[in-house]
Amino acid sequence: MSGRHLLSVADLGRQGIEEILRLADSFKEVAGRPIPRVPALRGKTVATLFFEASTRTRLSFETAAKRLSADVMSFSASTSSLEKGESLRDTIETIDAMGVDAMIVRHRSSGVPARVTAWTSASVVNAGDGQHEHPTQALLDCYTIREALGESGGRPQTDFSGLRIGIVGDVRHSRVARSDVLALSLLGAEVVLVAPRTLLPPSLEGWPVKATADLDAVLGELDVVYLLRIQAERAGRLLLPDLDEYHARFGLTRERAGRLAERALIMHPGPMIRGVEIAPEVADLPASLVTRQVRNGVFVRSAVLFHLLAGPAGAVVGEEDGDG
Amino acid sequence: MSGRHLLSVADLGRQGIEEILRLADSFKEVAGRPIPRVPALRGKTVATLFFEASTRTRLSFETAAKRLSADVMSFSASTSSLEKGESLRDTIETIDAMGVDAMIVRHRSSGVPARVTAWTSASVVNAGDGQHEHPTQALLDCYTIREALGESGGRPQTDFSGLRIGIVGDVRHSRVARSDVLALSLLGAEVVLVAPRTLLPPSLEGWPVKATADLDAVLGELDVVYLLRIQAERAGRLLLPDLDEYHARFGLTRERAGRLAERALIMHPGPMIRGVEIAPEVADLPASLVTRQVRNGVFVRSAVLFHLLAGPAGAVVGEEDGDG
Amino acid sequence: MSGRHLLSVADLGRQGIEEILRLADSFKEVAGRPIPRVPALRGKTVATLFFEASTRTRLSFETAAKRLSADVMSFSASTSSLEKGESLRDTIETIDAMGVDAMIVRHRSSGVPARVTAWTSASVVNAGDGQHEHPTQALLDCYTIREALGESGGRPQTDFSGLRIGIVGDVRHSRVARSDVLALSLLGAEVVLVAPRTLLPPSLEGWPVKATADLDAVLGELDVVYLLRIQAERAGRLLLPDLDEYHARFGLTRERAGRLAERALIMHPGPMIRGVEIAPEVADLPASLVTRQVRNGVFVRSAVLFHLLAGPAGAVVGEEDGDG
Repeated sequence: MSGRHLLSVADLGRQGIEEILRLADSFKEVAGRPIPRVPALRGKTVATLFFEASTRTRLSFETAAKRLSADVMSFSASTSSLEKGESLRDTIETIDAMGVDAMIVRHRSSGVPARVTAWTSASVVNAGDGQHEHPTQALLDCYTIREALGESGGRPQTDFSGLRIGIVGDVRHSRVARSDVLALSLLGAEVVLVAPRTLLPPSLEGWPVKATADLDAVLGELDVVYLLRIQAERAGRLLLPDLDEYHARFGLTRERAGRLAERALIMHPGPMIRGVEIAPEVADLPASLVTRQVRNGVFVRSAVLFHLLAGPAGAVVGEEDGDG
Repeated sequence: MSGRHLLSVADLGRQGIEEILRLADSFKEVAGRPIPRVPALRGKTVATLFFEASTRTRLSFETAAKRLSADVMSFSASTSSLEKGESLRDTIETIDAMGVDAMIVRHRSSGVPARVTAWTSASVVNAGDGQHEHPTQALLDCYTIREALGESGGRPQTDFSGLRIGIVGDVRHSRVARSDVLALSLLGAEVVLVAPRTLLPPSLEGWPVKATADLDAVLGELDVVYLLRIQAERAGRLLLPDLDEYHARFGLTRERAGRLAERALIMHPGPMIRGVEIAPEVADLPASLVTRQVRNGVFVRSAVLFHLLAGPAGAVVGEEDGDG
Repeated sequence: MSGRHLLSVADLGRQGIEEILRLADSFKEVAGRPIPRVPALRGKTVATLFFEASTRTRLSFETAAKRLSADVMSFSASTSSLEKGESLRDTIETIDAMGVDAMIVRHRSSGVPARVTAWTSASVVNAGDGQHEHPTQALLDCYTIREALGESGGRPQTDFSGLRIGIVGDVRHSRVARSDVLALSLLGAEVVLVAPRTLLPPSLEGWPVKATADLDAVLGELDVVYLLRIQAERAGRLLLPDLDEYHARFGLTRERAGRLAERALIMHPGPMIRGVEIAPEVADLPASLVTRQVRNGVFVRSAVLFHLLAGPAGAVVGEEDGDG
């Protein structure tokens, strides 16, 4: 990872992704200790600035920061001065002036985290910006696939060559899809987008992917089925009649789950709506890695914060001496 | 206390209650230290999951957890993915996956904390569920009575035989009443419910209590008058004309306070509405233990968390070495 | 500072202000350490009770408290029992009973922090009460002026004799103006209020100030232009046609900035609305100390908390030994 920030998977490149995943292994080990904490970021302050609410992602970052002994400052837009007419820039400069070392930024508009970097000396992590990117989600997805491959076939490895991964749903509006396509491709996987024409990006030029509107046609060939979240509040805009219709065409029904390849994996970034993207009982199959994705999210986010704030990759993850 | 969870006073039995109260004595002592903190739960994470808001109870649990050096994760429903259609189970499994050791759950529906135990490996503490139970409230009430008895008559003792305790108000809808009846009876007290027929449970079969609708008839015989909170927003449903009428019939007026037995105690779980359940000046009498209940709530909740997470009852409560 | 509380600048007197500013120097130095934290308030709990929302002020106090290793308890009115009909007094006594050492109180009504002192044994800090005072804002403003004077003319000094400071805007409704007038006058500065008649207090008797409605007439003579926040939601009540008119008459436009004295300073308590109180480009001039005010706010609030809770002024600010 070249810079001080993590705005896009593209900032990392293949080598950067591999570094983060290796570092996340250390934090997985830390999580198993009696005191799951290292002193690496003692005295540092990590601020979460969620201009768009997401309790799960915020808690994941905050837990990841606490594992590193960092202080956490939580800023949510709903109670902030933005409502009093303050500009985003002045809000950022205000938080910066209080002395923070990293800002974790989520915003409904694409590009906000990048703009934030101009207004602070802190490291900026994109925690989801509009329809642009959500790089830590892609990292935890890669980590989870790598972990599952390791369990079924030996040591974890980040060469995803030969893997075929289907990303199913509203690709067009999904920052998760965008980051995952980038990351999975960098690691060598073949990505197939499964969506109706209306839910694909207007142009796929430059995207290293295939696309189809027919889930059933590709289902048996997928090593991973990655189901995107459908935003019920947007259903009308999806040009789909309703959620039942969505489930029928793109949901991972019980019947479809039965036609998956033997060791195929099921993933979802959460929160999932059972009965829409996935049948209730399918979400509980052993092949479903959904809660494992959440668990790994903490390890990967600790790795990202460590990498950005604690020094060069590969540094030793120290023991907690029990007094933190 | 047998299990890993605290869902009901019935889980504890008399011996379990006595253990918690003795342990709470230790935390009362800790509170008087220059650094009121012990390292017992260092590295553990206690999550508060309040699907129904209660700032006071949440802060009490969080303070109790911090006294044990635990990390605290606050989850409130209003900003959560439940609004996006995620199931309660998936929310719980998500929080669990981030790595928490205890979940403190409050929910408007009875039985939710019990269901939560199936979805997490963490210890679950019921912080109030619907009209079912609120066991830590009953424990702090018992602790407060025991403490007051100790002050007026020697050593604290948990044998409440011979004590007559009146619980006044909307017993029917009160989880506090339910837990208190159980706990007080287990310790030997005689409980008298004071409520109009409409605010008593449909059947009292199996409840070790007497009941009356006439507060004045029993007032002079009570050792403790325990006033339940009246939920103003429910007044219409109470089949009472209005809050003034409630105050006239069931409020602890100044006049009634004058007719209490000499050493009678006044209790209320809070938040109290002066002028409704209790006359403003009565709330400030020395006999009123309301703020003491709050104070003891922290000790009792520390005791519960210690008991569930730190090992067998009776373990030594270590000194903080000043570096926490 | 005589008492246990900080309710008004008048509690401090000139000597008290000078003590706080000197102590703030220590915390400015602490902020530059690898671990910007001292153990002075370890084991103490600082509660923020913001009955009126202000994310920036709350975060500033919480950061200041964490620098001292204090625990922080956040209480916000919106989710509190006040909505259930509990009195302010009972809310305060409840928080007090949980064991807190300081209460930082913000409230829309003047005098609330003073009343709170009767209900708690904790130290009370006024974080803004109605149209009364906001003493820590005045302290950070004094600190910022002192720092800037030190940079341009040698050692920081708190004798503001000969300085002319213009406070511009809605003085009448501003607690910031009230505290700043007191503090700046105590340090020897000459204060000029710049506001239309309708936005001045009904009587200036006893205020050691001059007043004018004509910003342009005094602009060139000011050493500091202090712009008050205009509350857009109150614009109608300001008897001004609209915000554009306000900007034209009282805003620090680019043209006016060009007519400032050479070393004049520009200040604003934030959040500022660019284009109303200040032209967008003027806010970014080197003369503008706005973000420096925010930064200094943390130092000054650490100094206040240290002073109130850690003992006599001048006590050594200890080294963090790296295990906190």
